Amino acid sequence: METKLKELKTRLVEVNDLKSAAGLLQWDQETYMPPGGAPARARQIATLQRLAHEKFTDAAIGKLLDDLRSYEESLPYDSDEASLIRVTRRDYERAVKVPPPFIARLYDHMSASYQVWAEARPANDFARVRPYLEKTLDLSRQLADFFPGYEHIADPLIDYSDYGMKASTVRAIFTGLREQLVPLVQAITGQPVVDDACLHQTFPEAQQLAFGLEVMKRFGYDFERGRQDKSHHPFTTEFSIGDVRITTRVKENDLGEALFSSMHEAGHAMYEQGVRVDFEGTPLAGGTSSGIHESQSRLWENIIGRGWGFWRFFYPRLQAVFPDQLGSVPLETFYRAINKVEPSLIRTDADEVTYNLHVLLRFDFELELLEGRLAVRDLPEAWRERFRADLDVVPPDDHDGVLQDVHWYGGLIGGAFQGYTLGNIMSAAFFFEVALRAHPEITSETEKGKFGTLHSWLKENIYQHGHKYTPSELIERVTGGPLSVEPYVRYLRDKYGELYGL
Amino acid sequence: METKLKELKTRLVEVNDLKSAAGLLQWDQETYMPPGGAPARARQIATLQRLAHEKFTDAAIGKLLDDLRSYEESLPYDSDEASLIRVTRRDYERAVKVPPPFIARLYDHMSASYQVWAEARPANDFARVRPYLEKTLDLSRQLADFFPGYEHIADPLIDYSDYGMKASTVRAIFTGLREQLVPLVQAITGQPVVDDACLHQTFPEAQQLAFGLEVMKRFGYDFERGRQDKSHHPFTTEFSIGDVRITTRVKENDLGEALFSSMHEAGHAMYEQGVRVDFEGTPLAGGTSSGIHESQSRLWENIIGRGWGFWRFFYPRLQAVFPDQLGSVPLETFYRAINKVEPSLIRTDADEVTYNLHVLLRFDFELELLEGRLAVRDLPEAWRERFRADLDVVPPDDHDGVLQDVHWYGGLIGGAFQGYTLGNIMSAAFFFEVALRAHPEITSETEKGKFGTLHSWLKENIYQHGHKYTPSELIERVTGGPLSVEPYVRYLRDKYGELYGL
Repeated sequence: METKLKELKTRLVEVNDLKSAAGLLQWDQETYMPPGGAPARARQIATLQRLAHEKFTDAAIGKLLDDLRSYEESLPYDSDEASLIRVTRRDYERAVKVPPPFIARLYDHMSASYQVWAEARPANDFARVRPYLEKTLDLSRQLADFFPGYEHIADPLIDYSDYGMKASTVRAIFTGLREQLVPLVQAITGQPVVDDACLHQTFPEAQQLAFGLEVMKRFGYDFERGRQDKSHHPFTTEFSIGDVRITTRVKENDLGEALFSSMHEAGHAMYEQGVRVDFEGTPLAGGTSSGIHESQSRLWENIIGRGWGFWRFFYPRLQAVFPDQLGSVPLETFYRAINKVEPSLIRTDADEVTYNLHVLLRFDFELELLEGRLAVRDLPEAWRERFRADLDVVPPDDHDGVLQDVHWYGGLIGGAFQGYTLGNIMSAAFFFEVALRAHPEITSETEKGKFGTLHSWLKENIYQHGHKYTPSELIERVTGGPLSVEPYVRYLRDKYGELYGL
Repeated sequence: METKLKELKTRLVEVNDLKSAAGLLQWDQETYMPPGGAPARARQIATLQRLAHEKFTDAAIGKLLDDLRSYEESLPYDSDEASLIRVTRRDYERAVKVPPPFIARLYDHMSASYQVWAEARPANDFARVRPYLEKTLDLSRQLADFFPGYEHIADPLIDYSDYGMKASTVRAIFTGLREQLVPLVQAITGQPVVDDACLHQTFPEAQQLAFGLEVMKRFGYDFERGRQDKSHHPFTTEFSIGDVRITTRVKENDLGEALFSSMHEAGHAMYEQGVRVDFEGTPLAGGTSSGIHESQSRLWENIIGRGWGFWRFFYPRLQAVFPDQLGSVPLETFYRAINKVEPSLIRTDADEVTYNLHVLLRFDFELELLEGRLAVRDLPEAWRERFRADLDVVPPDDHDGVLQDVHWYGGLIGGAFQGYTLGNIMSAAFFFEVALRAHPEITSETEKGKFGTLHSWLKENIYQHGHKYTPSELIERVTGGPLSVEPYVRYLRDKYGELYGL
């Protein structure tokens, strides 16, 4: 059995190497690649993904998994070996349903679509990217149809990113959240508007990046095993446990843009860096779901990074970096500015409270598009209407409307967004509160710019396990119960009730 | 036959995609990769190279080549289709001789060795890298032994980089060159020493890079299809005809370092960028040999970039960039400084005349190591002795001695260096003189900072053909005769005779 397990691992590492290489080709495409590289790059990524898929769905892996079944059953459920076999089998059974030529077409298309979007967005030209998006929708449906027997056509796609979730489960959670969020947003928007002009002065790029770097290093993001570069859209990518990179984008007239997105991506990266090194190259490396992943980025970005304790320590440092801009701005004013709640156009710029409304509407659009109730050509108008209804703001153009997110233009429609709000829900109560109960000193350490206890707790309880447990298993292990929106709503009510004197 | 040729191309593009991906992983390793990425990266590159080798040596390709033989014979020799089949067959027949596991071991080792060298060189620690170099020698020998029947063990290795050349041919050429070079070096070193202090002031990195960029753009290096980054050792790499990148290194106290290496690498890159786009993804893309490649880089770096006409145009511009450093230095002084002949330690810093002595000794060491007449452990001492004998200088340490070049630490021993001098020999008479005969206006254009005629001529006569012709076929086509050292020696005698008043 040891020989078979070893052979399985060798094959899995080969698949991983192909995927990691494809990941680097994508990273390069979005950071340093000259424009002339685009056509061949799309083809190269498609080739690598197709080969990875071919290698992973090789019948020899199915045979090994069959041969290892009784061995797996003889081991404790959460032993590393049983987990490797179990997780591999789950992925394998899903992968063999999709034919390799489809994978090649899909990745080839996504890469081409991304390139067109990268030019169409600045040009505010939805028409240009529309045929690509239509093909993406078509391919997303085709992909779902390789998994017949679903309850909703989005289910197989959601399952890719948040294993175990369905459209109906997510819808139920989101409906519950919405019922409590809308009155909160209304109560806040009834209050005087917070002045956040202090964030919209001129902040030179180099200093912004240097300050962000200091924050991330203090969080515990290991730059010997990572780096930060610039791209259109911030993202985290992993080529091995020893090489987990993030990207950011900087706006010189918006101090929050690079800073909070850096904290966010650092949260993702620390998760990937914290996976046990002996999982390297196997399906057990990497985060377990987009929701859990997002809980880690949100925890650092919002619960820590937009918290009062954090800024008691860091604000004097930030003032020292930008004395002309912030020297005479009191901490209280700055803190209120970075936590200003205001219905706005751009998801990634949205505050903690209204952010979820951005996600909820995207999730609904995904379902409607997949169901065929909404056509791609009608999406820009539907987008504007929904913004008017939900947030009482209307995008003046598609650049800040339907073209704003890379997801549908560089990936699938279906399963792309729900993880963000699931992550928010998880981050607050389900992880941070448990950590705080175990280590109340986290609060005082944060006020000293120290994060070692929190980081260690996260490593111990979440990061190290990588993909070993399903999202619900992990939640159960850490919190002792199932997912509920209440603690998150409580967190928002407490924080924003105080900020807005509700 | 068309179907079979199409199938062959599809398979070749897949191999190309794997190799291009491996190339990007290597580029990243030497430019941006954080240290923690090293172990997995070595494995990933090895996996991709092994898969590329497996795919290329697939019996199906052999079968297609057999099936296409009569079709090939029915076509003109230099038709694109016949050339694709012919060049593929030549590469295939060589590749099938090497077993895939050996390729994986080789690339895995080269990647690991590179990492150790990158740390051992700054630490001046030959002992640390010695076992890696011993293994490299062993693997180089093993590789050669997959091609039994060679005249000299280095022949199969030389054949990889300079197809059609043998140790004996190269030795004969180098002996002829040496006989004429040594008296020239002696005559020059008998003259008063040129003062090149003007190059060794402080030149801030950013301005150096910006000036280099302007030069390369004027040469015709297309930055929409390329870019320049920094690395330990300058190199050119190609991921597609639309994405050909170079790297450089900057010394703030040596103006020549980044500038001339940038011109050099731009010469390589323009060659790759100039290949016909319909060769993309096939074995016909890329340069035809290391000698021909080097002739292109040397032509731009030395014949143009160290020429009087070039600096008549560019020197006032350079003075404008560095007014404090060069404002009062006359063009004549600067021109003599950049063409100063002086026996020195570092190959890449060497002048045009002594440069070849650096190559010749490395070539001899490669032969001796492969023959078993020299042991790796004795190499540092042999290096020092040979420098004393040939150049009358002795490296004070291994950092500036045997550790200076990446080649043996990131590649094979054998075939690594001869291309540099072959390229010098070719660059002058065999290509530039022919271009000049056809277009005498190249001289006056150069003095106006214009290089369109030269660049077009090189594209038309050399670049566009890529790998279609063998080196000797190409030389014959362009110059109407075989390779000879005389024109190059004449070029050196004319230029340096005038400079040194011989």
